[in-house]
Amino acid sequence: METKKWTQLWLDYKKAYDGEGIWKIVLNGFTDSQVVVANALYEFRRGIKALTGESVLEAGKDEEQGKKLLTLTISNNDSVSKEGYHIQGSDEGILVEASDERGVLYGVFAILRQIACGKSALEVSEASSPSNPLRMMNHWDNMDGSIERGYSGESFFFEKDEIIINDRTRDYARFMASIGINGVVINNVNVKAAASYLITDRYYDQVARLSEIFNDYGISLYLSLNFASPIEIGDLDTCDPLDKKVISWWKDKMKEIYERLPLLGGFLVKADSEGRPGPFTYGRTQADGANMLADVIKPYGGIIIWRCFVYNCTQDWRDTKTDRARAGYDYFKDLDGAYHDNVILQIKNGPMDFQIREPVSPLLGGLQHTNQMLEVQIAQEYTGHQIDLCYLIPLFKEVLDFHTHCCEGKDTVADVVSGRTMGNSLAGMAAVINTGNDANWTGNDLAAANLYGFGRLSFDTDLSAEEIAKEWIALTYKLPEKEAGVLCSMLLRSREIYEKYTSPLGIGWMVTPGDHYGPSIDGYEYSRWGTYHRADHLGIGVDRTDKGTGYAQQYYEENAVMYNDPEKCPEELLLFFHHIPYTWKLKTGKTLIQHIYDSHFEGEEQARGLAADWESLKDVIPAVSFDRVKERFERQLYNAREWRDQVNSYFYRKSGIADEKGRTIY
Amino acid sequence: METKKWTQLWLDYKKAYDGEGIWKIVLNGFTDSQVVVANALYEFRRGIKALTGESVLEAGKDEEQGKKLLTLTISNNDSVSKEGYHIQGSDEGILVEASDERGVLYGVFAILRQIACGKSALEVSEASSPSNPLRMMNHWDNMDGSIERGYSGESFFFEKDEIIINDRTRDYARFMASIGINGVVINNVNVKAAASYLITDRYYDQVARLSEIFNDYGISLYLSLNFASPIEIGDLDTCDPLDKKVISWWKDKMKEIYERLPLLGGFLVKADSEGRPGPFTYGRTQADGANMLADVIKPYGGIIIWRCFVYNCTQDWRDTKTDRARAGYDYFKDLDGAYHDNVILQIKNGPMDFQIREPVSPLLGGLQHTNQMLEVQIAQEYTGHQIDLCYLIPLFKEVLDFHTHCCEGKDTVADVVSGRTMGNSLAGMAAVINTGNDANWTGNDLAAANLYGFGRLSFDTDLSAEEIAKEWIALTYKLPEKEAGVLCSMLLRSREIYEKYTSPLGIGWMVTPGDHYGPSIDGYEYSRWGTYHRADHLGIGVDRTDKGTGYAQQYYEENAVMYNDPEKCPEELLLFFHHIPYTWKLKTGKTLIQHIYDSHFEGEEQARGLAADWESLKDVIPAVSFDRVKERFERQLYNAREWRDQVNSYFYRKSGIADEKGRTIY
Repeated sequence: METKKWTQLWLDYKKAYDGEGIWKIVLNGFTDSQVVVANALYEFRRGIKALTGESVLEAGKDEEQGKKLLTLTISNNDSVSKEGYHIQGSDEGILVEASDERGVLYGVFAILRQIACGKSALEVSEASSPSNPLRMMNHWDNMDGSIERGYSGESFFFEKDEIIINDRTRDYARFMASIGINGVVINNVNVKAAASYLITDRYYDQVARLSEIFNDYGISLYLSLNFASPIEIGDLDTCDPLDKKVISWWKDKMKEIYERLPLLGGFLVKADSEGRPGPFTYGRTQADGANMLADVIKPYGGIIIWRCFVYNCTQDWRDTKTDRARAGYDYFKDLDGAYHDNVILQIKNGPMDFQIREPVSPLLGGLQHTNQMLEVQIAQEYTGHQIDLCYLIPLFKEVLDFHTHCCEGKDTVADVVSGRTMGNSLAGMAAVINTGNDANWTGNDLAAANLYGFGRLSFDTDLSAEEIAKEWIALTYKLPEKEAGVLCSMLLRSREIYEKYTSPLGIGWMVTPGDHYGPSIDGYEYSRWGTYHRADHLGIGVDRTDKGTGYAQQYYEENAVMYNDPEKCPEELLLFFHHIPYTWKLKTGKTLIQHIYDSHFEGEEQARGLAADWESLKDVIPAVSFDRVKERFERQLYNAREWRDQVNSYFYRKSGIADEKGRTIY
Repeated sequence: METKKWTQLWLDYKKAYDGEGIWKIVLNGFTDSQVVVANALYEFRRGIKALTGESVLEAGKDEEQGKKLLTLTISNNDSVSKEGYHIQGSDEGILVEASDERGVLYGVFAILRQIACGKSALEVSEASSPSNPLRMMNHWDNMDGSIERGYSGESFFFEKDEIIINDRTRDYARFMASIGINGVVINNVNVKAAASYLITDRYYDQVARLSEIFNDYGISLYLSLNFASPIEIGDLDTCDPLDKKVISWWKDKMKEIYERLPLLGGFLVKADSEGRPGPFTYGRTQADGANMLADVIKPYGGIIIWRCFVYNCTQDWRDTKTDRARAGYDYFKDLDGAYHDNVILQIKNGPMDFQIREPVSPLLGGLQHTNQMLEVQIAQEYTGHQIDLCYLIPLFKEVLDFHTHCCEGKDTVADVVSGRTMGNSLAGMAAVINTGNDANWTGNDLAAANLYGFGRLSFDTDLSAEEIAKEWIALTYKLPEKEAGVLCSMLLRSREIYEKYTSPLGIGWMVTPGDHYGPSIDGYEYSRWGTYHRADHLGIGVDRTDKGTGYAQQYYEENAVMYNDPEKCPEELLLFFHHIPYTWKLKTGKTLIQHIYDSHFEGEEQARGLAADWESLKDVIPAVSFDRVKERFERQLYNAREWRDQVNSYFYRKSGIADEKGRTIY
């Protein structure tokens, strides 16, 4: 067997049972000249061999002596929805029905997953269709090989301004396909330097090869686009989206792009944000910018994914009227309905930036006539850099389950971004990915649960965080029940623990500026980023009510009323919406300051509990993986202790109020 | 005239008056085959032409029609002390007496300086000998071209791991010679990467060329040394200074070095500090390390300059017993007398790290049997990055004038580091230099006053900050009296202004971590660097008395008693030595908190005063220089405002005590 420098993640199937059959493939309405189907068969052959020891008959053979003949039948069935599948085991084998190639591939992966999770091949059974039309990964990979917010090594797509294509590329596509991902943006949304030239002769051939490898696993390749391309790679002196020369330049460029990259899904654009160029430069709206690009890409079936992460990143901290949280809604709500059909707005889950706790963005569902997709981040930028364990699926579930009250019924975020609310077909979910060229792909082996989890959740938003965790554990480690339970519990507790020892009650930030790992309570307090906690000797929190910045009023009434009132506001978001005295009594009966102390002592203690739980798994986890994770836990404990002591000391020094329990605060 | 990409700084002489003579050179006891003497004559020729329009007769000529013949007589006079000079003008010309070539060179520069400052050539008169035997510049230049703590562009010595030698190199040597500098360390004390190979074949030829250019202007070239060289460039697995293989390796290496670099002055070593290797690794003392190197370099007349900047840089902020301020004394005092004769300890002016206000290091004079030299920093690492105006000579004067009480009389720092106290000849001053390859050498044109000033002060520690400022202004800008007075006042006020709007009363730090520009009040509060202010809702400051860390006890009794008592402690250092309540009454009658508010409002206002003064000089300063400095003042005002508002807001939010004057605090 080939030794690889990277792991197979959840596709490293372990023996489930000793099967005694041999498999024959029957294709109805599909052919193995369809590359995605052929790859599905490759995955079946590879997976079933590992899981049961059973082989698939070689071409032309009809039986093998002493083996029971089982049939994997793959049938075209147009009543199965797009990219969906039916799988059904029986004594004769397994029937996979799908209406398209991707459905076949996902069906085969479902078979293997069910076997790994405990079913026999002949028992597998599932009818599934994806919740979201678009299920995407966003790489923030730079062409020099660095990754913005990457915690797992360097890029495996780029190195020294060249595109890397090797066996790992295909494995990556396999992993993504196995969890239902159907779109990947390979380059950083901040498109600079060589990346601006991805849509030129310099890179077309390599991008095309990459798009083919992806396509063979049912994945469309997308690129992040430099809005200033007409200036940077063209010879224009403007990128005004309403300028005729600009439009004409883009028309020609898009024609060229699709001649060279016919498989390209479209473009992701970060404009007018954090120093990126955009339509605002020319007094144009975000819609002007997005629609112009959408119109020129339309003939080729491409889409424009336009990010809503637009805010004033040169705010004066003295200014308490401006509120970064308001920015997305303020910039985009008025243009609701103005975006063309092949534009989709990509909206971060919260109004700030991937904090451990934020309210749901009021744009989600706030827009009622605009294609929209949810953006989450599995790269743990603010949630522990894949050093600290932080299983994020519970957070994503909360977001998806949130009732926006945008309409009667079908008003959750899951409804909105799936297209169910508005009946639109351009809809979905995207994650800023947490991978790099580390051997284990995700730095922390356990962070792969977020990678796996996001894919599975975007395919089926009804799955629970626990179900996903169990699947991932079974596929990755195949542990005895008790130990699987320990690991599952670790994952499920981890987000709350991380929240407890970091910033309290939704206030966010308090991280080391720039790096975003570890505490710096005032680190973003006097900065230009719109990220303040406003703590003084009496209290802490940002007044975002109708008497403050008015952010709470961006929600539909039910939520606006709830958030506006500190008595009704969910306490985990109390400091996001209100400036609260340290002596304020929480529902637990504790004062705010005591809650801060208690939660930080508890969080650190519980982090030690996670590390102890991991230690208890020493005998059942492969040593190389065990050691890698153990080393991460050591760093997490150091981090948790720093957070605990710095937060507690900061608030004790500021408030002068002692811990009721008399614990050590510095 | 040749157009250069760099300025001539204070050697860009302006016409002082129209001279009517012509000069003849007479050498007694010197010859122009002595290169330093020849360069002195070159400087005279160049300078007198620019200052008076007068020429020097060409070789073989004895007169020029219609011109009065003047004579520059350069005579050897062994009664003039080493590197000193006597200059005396008369109707016949000028007599320069010196006992060595450097004295001749310095004498000639003194003539030109006096003319530029208003005397006629025939009136010049001075008898001077250098206060300090060693007058050095330390470059923190890396071989990749970057400069650690450089604010004036890249290195002009190194680029892409190669040594640069061009016309600028010679100009640099001229500038240094003109202010009396006789030693230059060209590479960063943190010796890494290619710099470790400066003492190998790879670089010998180029270093030798550089040392010759320096030598021609009376400057010895020194190198920073990697203590781990036996490992890094040798093939040993240890650098234990008591290991015979190591000693033998160094002997061979030193022989090789001096064969190739006969002009080398010696080495500067940063060991066991901030991650640098050193003798502590092997359980050896700092003396073990320094003496071993000193012994092997001794046959060649070289010296070892050993830095005392050793401290625990992984301190736990929770630990209030450990005190970084103590570290230098704790590590080095016990070894007083153990260092060999050709070792000199280089001691930073304060116990921390070049803050705008620190007490004088208790090691200075605390060591009574050890060669020691003073290290200051004219690179404005913590004092405004050569953006903010901060004329540092007043600070250095305070340090030099400080009575250590190490003995009766001759107990000032100036006495100690000049060698007067102990009668030692290895003594002096060094500055971490503020130059780079910017056209104006120092980023801010006005920061050249620190470059000029350090050299002059190290040559003559009796000069006042004001005298030095006036010289520099006359040489650099030659302004009318009133405007010269405005600029001189700006320089002299600038340090106090910078102090006012930054960290109060000697507490230091409160800067942006890493970068060290701009405020971050808690930036170093919870860090590993031993740099804390310990502010809580009641007060601020570090207790370094006998009841605290005991640092104050490292001084001789008179000072120890003074610092130990908050009533006697100089108020500008109050928070360095004591934890003081905000309600403490200062000698002005103001409370501490009110002092913080007032000084920050005043400091910012006075910074605006500096900018306004500069504006008033618009008509008399060359436009290119005026504009460069004006742009710096704009940045300084932004910085001063940030400091003012962040410091005031921080303490208001923490103390809850309002400003008596009701000014805006956020």
